[in-house]
Amino acid sequence: MSSVEKYIKENAKSFEEQLFNFLRIPSVSTDSKHKGDVKKAAQFLIDQLNEIGLDKVTLHETEGHPIITAEKCPHEDRPTVLIYGHYDVQPSDPDELWETPPFEPTVKDGRVYARGSSDDKGQSFTHVKAIEAYMKTGTDLPVNVKFILEGEEEIGSPNLIPFIKANKELLKCDMVLISDTAMFGEDQPSITYGLRGLAYMEVHVTGPNRDLHSGVFGGAVENPANALAEIIAKLKDEDGVIQIPGFYDDVEPMTAEMREAYKQLPFDEKGYKKDLNLTALHGEKGYGTLERASARPSLDVNGLWSGYQGEGAKTVLPAKAGAKISMRLVPDQEPQKIAELFSDYVNSIAPDTVTVEVEEHHGGYPVVIDLDFYGLKAAAKAFEEVYNKDVLFAREGGSIPIVADFKKVLGVNSILMGFGLTKDALHSPNESFSLKDFHRGIQTSAKFFELLPEYSE
Amino acid sequence: MSSVEKYIKENAKSFEEQLFNFLRIPSVSTDSKHKGDVKKAAQFLIDQLNEIGLDKVTLHETEGHPIITAEKCPHEDRPTVLIYGHYDVQPSDPDELWETPPFEPTVKDGRVYARGSSDDKGQSFTHVKAIEAYMKTGTDLPVNVKFILEGEEEIGSPNLIPFIKANKELLKCDMVLISDTAMFGEDQPSITYGLRGLAYMEVHVTGPNRDLHSGVFGGAVENPANALAEIIAKLKDEDGVIQIPGFYDDVEPMTAEMREAYKQLPFDEKGYKKDLNLTALHGEKGYGTLERASARPSLDVNGLWSGYQGEGAKTVLPAKAGAKISMRLVPDQEPQKIAELFSDYVNSIAPDTVTVEVEEHHGGYPVVIDLDFYGLKAAAKAFEEVYNKDVLFAREGGSIPIVADFKKVLGVNSILMGFGLTKDALHSPNESFSLKDFHRGIQTSAKFFELLPEYSE
Repeated sequence: MSSVEKYIKENAKSFEEQLFNFLRIPSVSTDSKHKGDVKKAAQFLIDQLNEIGLDKVTLHETEGHPIITAEKCPHEDRPTVLIYGHYDVQPSDPDELWETPPFEPTVKDGRVYARGSSDDKGQSFTHVKAIEAYMKTGTDLPVNVKFILEGEEEIGSPNLIPFIKANKELLKCDMVLISDTAMFGEDQPSITYGLRGLAYMEVHVTGPNRDLHSGVFGGAVENPANALAEIIAKLKDEDGVIQIPGFYDDVEPMTAEMREAYKQLPFDEKGYKKDLNLTALHGEKGYGTLERASARPSLDVNGLWSGYQGEGAKTVLPAKAGAKISMRLVPDQEPQKIAELFSDYVNSIAPDTVTVEVEEHHGGYPVVIDLDFYGLKAAAKAFEEVYNKDVLFAREGGSIPIVADFKKVLGVNSILMGFGLTKDALHSPNESFSLKDFHRGIQTSAKFFELLPEYSE
Repeated sequence: MSSVEKYIKENAKSFEEQLFNFLRIPSVSTDSKHKGDVKKAAQFLIDQLNEIGLDKVTLHETEGHPIITAEKCPHEDRPTVLIYGHYDVQPSDPDELWETPPFEPTVKDGRVYARGSSDDKGQSFTHVKAIEAYMKTGTDLPVNVKFILEGEEEIGSPNLIPFIKANKELLKCDMVLISDTAMFGEDQPSITYGLRGLAYMEVHVTGPNRDLHSGVFGGAVENPANALAEIIAKLKDEDGVIQIPGFYDDVEPMTAEMREAYKQLPFDEKGYKKDLNLTALHGEKGYGTLERASARPSLDVNGLWSGYQGEGAKTVLPAKAGAKISMRLVPDQEPQKIAELFSDYVNSIAPDTVTVEVEEHHGGYPVVIDLDFYGLKAAAKAFEEVYNKDVLFAREGGSIPIVADFKKVLGVNSILMGFGLTKDALHSPNESFSLKDFHRGIQTSAKFFELLPEYSE
C-alpha cells in the first residue's frame, strides 16, 4: 500500500466529518436568503484548498455566487486535469418529506442523508481529499491539477461560461474531470462518455380572437386544439422516426463499436418496464431501448394546454392552444439549427386557418467523448483497480451543458467519473450518498492521477 | 285594429312596469342564498296567471325550485299550445362590469338593461301579456293554451324532465311554444327550426406511472401527450370529415329545400371572418359555413392538458395527458350511440404502449322541426304581420335539450319564436332586451294564437 492509499484509509473518519461540516451549510443558490450560506460554503472550500497547500487559491466574485479556482502544477511536461464541481445545492423543500433534517447529515446503513450529499458536495469533495493525500504525505503529485468550483450549477450556471471564456489561460488544461453523475448500478463503476443535447421549443396556435361557443361555431371555424394535435402528430411517424426534414442530417451514425458497447450494458428490459408500469415500450425502429434513450435523438411533448381543463363539461371552442416540445440531440446536431428546422417544418404544416408561433427556449449541445481518449482509459483503469470490476461505458440521455461548453471554449474532453447511484434521490427529499462510494471515490481519484501520466505517453 | 291589438297598444307602459318588477327579483337559481328570490319570482307569475283568469294555476314544489303550470282550454276541437319559459336567471357576477345595477332595470336607447331581461323573463312574459289581452278584452281565446314555467333552466333543469314524464296528461298539447332564442338580426324575424345534439367525451391517456425526465427516458418510452395528439389527429381528415366508423350512418342528408333555406339567409362571410379575426374558415368539405355550423355534425376539442404548462422549460415526459372532446349531432344521430362509436374508435386507434380511458359527459338529442309543420307556418305568418318582413328559417348549432325532450316525452314539436338579439349579452354583464321587441313579441304571440286555428285545418 502506498503512503497515499494509507493516508486515505487512515483519515476516512476525518474525511467524513469534514464532508458533514460541508453538508451542514445550506448553500441553496436559488434562494436569496441563503446567499450568505452559499458564500460560507465557498469559504469552506477556500480554506480546504489553502490548508492542503494548493497555489493561487482564489475566490472570484461574480454577479451571482462566487467561482473558486486553485491549482498545483508541478510538471510542465505532464497532463493538466481541470477538476470541476459545484458547492451549491437544490432547495430542500418539501421539507416535511425528509425523514431526517436536510442540513443535518445523518448516517443510516452506510449512507449519509443530506441535501447535496451526492449532488455535488460529496462527489466533488473526493478530489479535494485525493489531492490532499498526495500533498500531506509529501508524495509527488503525478499530474498538474486545477480546480474550478462554482456556486450556481443548480440555477443554470449563468456566470460560469463568461468566466471560462475570460480565463482561458488560467484554466488551460488537457481534460476536465467531473464527478456529478451516477454509476450504472451498485458496485458497478461506469463512465459516461456521451450526453445528449437539447432544443426546447414552444408552439402557440391561435384561432379566433376569443373563446367561442362550440355549438354555435363548431364545424365552421378551425379549432386551434385540433390543429395543434394534427401538427404534433406529424412530427413523428408510426415507427417513431422524426419527420422534420433535415433532422437526421448531422446525426453521427452509431459505429459497430458503439453498438457493441451498448450490448455489454447489463440492461433488464423487463424490470425497466415493470418499474414504469408499462406493458410495452416505444421508440425509433431499429434501435434498442438504451440506444433510443441516449445514442439517438428524440422528440417529446413536455406540456400541452388548451381550453377548459376543469371538472365536467364546457362547450368551448378555444381561441388558443399551446405545447412545449423538446428534442434531445446527438452529435453532430446543433441546437440552433435543429430549432430552425423545427420551426420551419411546423410553419410549413400549419394550416392557414390558424396562426402558429414557434419560440425557442434554451438549448444545449450534445457531446460524445471518443472511447480512445487516453483520459477515459486511465479513468477506467483507476476504477477497475479500486472497484475490482470492469468499467461500463455508457451514454446518458440527459444533458450536462457545461461538458459541451468546456469542449467548445477550452477544446478539451471531460471525464465523467460518477460515484453516485440512481437511488441517491438528487433534487428530491432524502438525498443520500453511499459513504463506501465516497471513500472509493477518493481512492479512484488518487489512482487516476497516478495512472494518467503513463496513458498520456 | 282589433280590441286585442288595442289593449296591447294601450297597456304598453303598464306591461313594461310589470316586467321591470319581475326583473327586480334576483331569482338566481344556482345560488342557494337566492332560493327565496326564486320562489318570489314564481309567486309573481302565479299572481299574474291568476289575475288574468287562467285555470288550474298551480305551483308544484320540486326538490329544487318550483314548476308552475296553468291553462285555459276553451276549445276541445282546436290546437293546444304549451308555453314553456323559465323565470330563473344567471348570476350577475362580475358585478363590477355592469354599467347599471343588474337587478334595477334601467332603460337606455329603447333597451332595458337587467339580468334576465332577455333570458328569459322578458321573452317569456310576452305570452303572458298576449293571453291577458284576450282575457281582459273578453275576446274568445282562439286556441287552448297551457303554461309550464320552470325555475331551474340555468342549472340544467334537473327536475323538469321527471315532472313532464309524470304529468303527460296535464301537459298534453299539440305543440310547445318557446321564446328563448335570438332573431337573425335586428328587425329580422326568424324561427329556429333545428338544434344540434351533443355527445361530450373525455379521454385520458396514461403512460408511465410517474412523470419522467425527458432526457433520460425520451425516445424509449411512449409519451402520452404525443399519443393523445396522434389520437386526436385521427378523428378528422384534412377535409374536416369525421373518421369515426359509422359516425355519419344516421345523419339525415340535407334536402334541396333545406339547402335552399340556407341560401336565403343573409350571411356575410367576410364580416363573420372579420369579427373572429380569421383569414380563413375551415370545415367539412362540400358544405357552406352556416350549414357546417348547424346542419352538419362537428367534432371539437374543448380542452387539452398534459405535463408542464408554466413559464419556461421543464424537461418532463408526462405520465398523463387528457382531452375533452365533444361532437355536435344532427338528426337522426343518437348521443349514446355516437358516444359508443367514439369510444370504440379511440380504443381501436390507441397504441398499446399507453392506457386509454374514455368517459362520457352529458349528451343531448338533435332536433329538426319539419318546415311543413303548420305551427311553424302560423308562427311565420304572425311574425310577418307584426314585423312586416318575411321570416327567415334557421337552424342553430347549439343545443336546447328540452326541445328534444318535449319531442320524446310528449311527442310534439316546439316552435322557437325568439325575440332576442345576439347583442343581448345573455349570461354576460349588461344583459339587455329591446323594448320594441318586447312589445312586438306580445303582438306576435297574440297574432300567432289568432292565426293558428286556420293553419291547423
